Amino acid sequence: MAAMKPECELVEEWRDVLARHARTVCELDRELHPFGLGASDFEVLEVLAGGGDPGAGGEAPAGGGECAYRVQEIADRVHLSQSALSRLVGRLERDGLVTRGMCESDRRGVRVVLTDAGRAKYAEVRPLQRGVLARTLAGRDALPQSGAAG
Amino acid sequence: MAAMKPECELVEEWRDVLARHARTVCELDRELHPFGLGASDFEVLEVLAGGGDPGAGGEAPAGGGECAYRVQEIADRVHLSQSALSRLVGRLERDGLVTRGMCESDRRGVRVVLTDAGRAKYAEVRPLQRGVLARTLAGRDALPQSGAAG
Repeated sequence: MAAMKPECELVEEWRDVLARHARTVCELDRELHPFGLGASDFEVLEVLAGGGDPGAGGEAPAGGGECAYRVQEIADRVHLSQSALSRLVGRLERDGLVTRGMCESDRRGVRVVLTDAGRAKYAEVRPLQRGVLARTLAGRDALPQSGAAG
Repeated sequence: MAAMKPECELVEEWRDVLARHARTVCELDRELHPFGLGASDFEVLEVLAGGGDPGAGGEAPAGGGECAYRVQEIADRVHLSQSALSRLVGRLERDGLVTRGMCESDRRGVRVVLTDAGRAKYAEVRPLQRGVLARTLAGRDALPQSGAAG
């Protein structure tokens, strides 16, 4: 039997997750709004730009960018329902940031790929998104390096 | 200057928050659906039932339950916009779980209070909500107490 956390710890932990999530999404929406993007839009662009691996730096996904991700594959990574993601992708498509098309080697579904404009937009806003994460997630355990307790 | 986390750590931490949030909200929505509630509904009931302090056990808020919370006070605690919360409270009111009314001692705004049915519903679903938290949040650092590695 795995150790069971006390109820108060669980509730405190859940409130912490809720607060960090809300604060970060709110800040991301505010920062990205002038670029016509929201927090979830960025997550989708990041998946399409290379999976969001911090070391990848916007590399094209496997397949050379021609047969990229199916909607369900993206949904699993960005924690959206397939219907919500379809609406989001439709909006990104109208803005010229992604395109949808059947993949010739796989007739099971529509694939989504970044356009050049989408890749440029991702590169433009990525530093802003990282700046938000640094501000909103650093609070809890960022300690002064030395000479503290002033 | 506070210590700055490396970019990869920030991105990893953000993905962890997103995953824990999505997993828990999804499970809460599923568990609470048969009771006509969603994850955010529960958070609102918990605030109205006593602020969600695990030790409070559903005590009435200060004011004896007559002049309870203003919508903005609840919004700050449950991380919803005031408009989203107003819709949610309207739905809880139609279901007979809360009532809204002007507070005689404070004419600045409408106050929201739990009805008896709302308090009973909260008490009914609270163990289910705690069970979800135990399942979805325990994963990361729940270690076997002793005699592990079986």
